[in-house]
Amino acid sequence: MSEAARIKASDLEKFIASAFEAVDVPPADARSIAELMARADVNGSEGHGVFRLPQYIRRIKGGAVNVRPNIRIEREAAAMALVNGDNGMGHLVMKRATDIAIEKAKTAGVAWVGAQWSNHAGPASLYASMPMEHDMIGLYLAVGSANHLPPWGGLDMLLSTNPLAVGVPAGEEAPIVLDMATTVAAYGKVKTKAQRGETMPVGWMMDREGKPLTDPKRANEGFLLPIGDYKGYGLALIIGLLAGTLNRAAMGKDVVDFNADDTTPTNTGHAIVAISIEAFGGVEEFKRSVDVLVRDLRASKRLPGVDRVWLPGEQSHAKRADNLRNGVPMPAALAASLKQLASELKIAPLE
Amino acid sequence: MSEAARIKASDLEKFIASAFEAVDVPPADARSIAELMARADVNGSEGHGVFRLPQYIRRIKGGAVNVRPNIRIEREAAAMALVNGDNGMGHLVMKRATDIAIEKAKTAGVAWVGAQWSNHAGPASLYASMPMEHDMIGLYLAVGSANHLPPWGGLDMLLSTNPLAVGVPAGEEAPIVLDMATTVAAYGKVKTKAQRGETMPVGWMMDREGKPLTDPKRANEGFLLPIGDYKGYGLALIIGLLAGTLNRAAMGKDVVDFNADDTTPTNTGHAIVAISIEAFGGVEEFKRSVDVLVRDLRASKRLPGVDRVWLPGEQSHAKRADNLRNGVPMPAALAASLKQLASELKIAPLE
Repeated sequence: MSEAARIKASDLEKFIASAFEAVDVPPADARSIAELMARADVNGSEGHGVFRLPQYIRRIKGGAVNVRPNIRIEREAAAMALVNGDNGMGHLVMKRATDIAIEKAKTAGVAWVGAQWSNHAGPASLYASMPMEHDMIGLYLAVGSANHLPPWGGLDMLLSTNPLAVGVPAGEEAPIVLDMATTVAAYGKVKTKAQRGETMPVGWMMDREGKPLTDPKRANEGFLLPIGDYKGYGLALIIGLLAGTLNRAAMGKDVVDFNADDTTPTNTGHAIVAISIEAFGGVEEFKRSVDVLVRDLRASKRLPGVDRVWLPGEQSHAKRADNLRNGVPMPAALAASLKQLASELKIAPLE
Repeated sequence: MSEAARIKASDLEKFIASAFEAVDVPPADARSIAELMARADVNGSEGHGVFRLPQYIRRIKGGAVNVRPNIRIEREAAAMALVNGDNGMGHLVMKRATDIAIEKAKTAGVAWVGAQWSNHAGPASLYASMPMEHDMIGLYLAVGSANHLPPWGGLDMLLSTNPLAVGVPAGEEAPIVLDMATTVAAYGKVKTKAQRGETMPVGWMMDREGKPLTDPKRANEGFLLPIGDYKGYGLALIIGLLAGTLNRAAMGKDVVDFNADDTTPTNTGHAIVAISIEAFGGVEEFKRSVDVLVRDLRASKRLPGVDRVWLPGEQSHAKRADNLRNGVPMPAALAASLKQLASELKIAPLE
């Protein structure tokens, strides 16, 4: 299997589902998780799709994740709920939380659903995009699953890359989907660089002496840098308060590094907000306004050397079309790790 | 009056109120606006307090702002409202919108209130802080009142510095209040630098050839830079969609530059979200968790040369205490412009 190999999304999905079934996840849940993970790869979120499968399986085998969770509403009001994920896979918890947010927003206009006792749920854009199918705007926040960020000026890694995603539907144009870590690079991108044997650009990470760190294999000797210096630190902190502390989920020193630990529940916190466009005014008028804005931005005059102005999510949208047609790219190192996983689990390998 | 002069907050408030009364703002409204503007100065948001008074008065005299607005709810549901500001002063519109959000969040748990046909409302933190008095978290978004930001890679200034503020109450510690523009510097800071005759650091602005721009008097020859490059562009765009487009307020090319125009209504959009901490769990438990987090962050080991790790809003909190005790700093250039304003309006000058 060469670097350029491509895998059909449906084959990827079946493989992922069979891996989860092999570690005792009920078949319907295994299919739900697999569908969301394969969707992440199709969308080009390659650091948060099947790449994470060996780690997810390792943590399930280690007893860190509950394969038969009783996911339930812990508290609720007209426009909010707090979902207790019972330490189930984050994908299941957040799919449920997002469904609740959409349902409540239909009558309340807006709904904010927090989750506690969840786990890593893949790329933020997965959940922020779901409300768009109901002509709603989606906003997702999460506490990252490992601390790689100190407070600004500090050295103790008390914060994660706490991501933010927002999905805004358009009319004829691709939806606007922002999915960003509050650090210059997400830690998943560092892991991908390491797996591919590439070096990182200056500005992604810094070592404890304040010098640039560019070797992704030395990532544990330094920390990620926040966007806009103290502003990114502030954003990471606020997202952690909203997705973690408010939900009585882990934040700060209580965050478990799920890369290094296969046995401890993480009590991961997330939040999903669904905003009904209809509640604020006409849906079609809104979508036309978004189309106009998108076209104005794209038609902007450009700095010397710039070929095109992109909208957030537009490149992912194009990748999605390509990956659905031609299959998901499968780098050799990832293919090898999945082959080994198949052998360990005694399931049919991905061919 | 020397550079180091300090003015009592109550004197500042009276002066501001008398200026608004002189241009036919009803006395109760003039007092409300003055209280919020003086609070901005007390909090150290010096680019958004009395510094803006001559401009506000100029726009009222030019007919751009309605001094007798019928501020009203245009649409509502259990957890949302859309407030039509009837082109009134932004402070009045956003005070009203925030009161509605707090009231709705008491029963719905969370409420999101958008505003249309509003105007510049001062610093974002003013409104994000109001829900804290009711043990709620406040989140404020706004479309900035002038476009100084092109899309990433572009030159056409289609976006503003669209700010974001979040206020999170603590227990014994100062509340965490993040108030940030999505650009490296807010345009208000550029104006302050110009008024003080100072130069800007490299990285705040760029000219149309892509070169650093450091002379604030040449600000109209370039544009502000977003935090985290394309990420800050994405954030500014998303905030504009949520605070502007969703509320059918101005966004993109429809944004009026209120620095250069004294006659055109801006249709400024904002959004305020109130989140009841009680709805999610115990308020005291939450505040204790915030205190623990704040102390952990502050106690972090530090990079060489760093004296202290700050929390967002902590420096403003300290400035507030100092300004309440010793008066608000009044630079000579600002004092001169306010003296001239008093003379034009035939009101008692600030002494």
